[in-house]
Amino acid sequence: MYKVKVFVTLRESILDPQGTAVKGSLHSLGFEAVEDVRIGKYLEVTIDKSVENIDLAVKEMCEKLLTNVVMEDYRYEVEEVVAP
Amino acid sequence: MYKVKVFVTLRESILDPQGTAVKGSLHSLGFEAVEDVRIGKYLEVTIDKSVENIDLAVKEMCEKLLTNVVMEDYRYEVEEVVAP
Repeated sequence: MYKVKVFVTLRESILDPQGTAVKGSLHSLGFEAVEDVRIGKYLEVTIDKSVENIDLAVKEMCEKLLTNVVMEDYRYEVEEVVAP
Repeated sequence: MYKVKVFVTLRESILDPQGTAVKGSLHSLGFEAVEDVRIGKYLEVTIDKSVENIDLAVKEMCEKLLTNVVMEDYRYEVEEVVAP
């Protein structure tokens, strides 16, 4: 079994209004030291061992469905889990 | 400057309909080996060096604003960045 962690972030050049709003709220709560907040997605995908090329499979999933490649970047970590 | 990465995930006991929908879509695209998808948030928070106790500050931010502690778990990584 593979446990894949996918991190999806907005590209640097894309404005992040949600992050800006959260930064404002953190300032209001007294965390004035916060300089920037960027918000992305974090996915944990569990995949059966039967997949031959896990890297290729994850890249395809990310580019076909999980990310918008025009606006977002992604990176991922694959962990092999031995079922108990 | 600190770069803090915060990972927010739904607690194990909480259903994740968004993840279930994504799993269904991945199956439709031919990725039948996907067994489970859980979707969370990923935040990159840049914080000024002036903060005395960065761990305490990040925990407070997470518990007061960034996560819903009833339904969500969080973990974070702090990286110290030397400004160029």
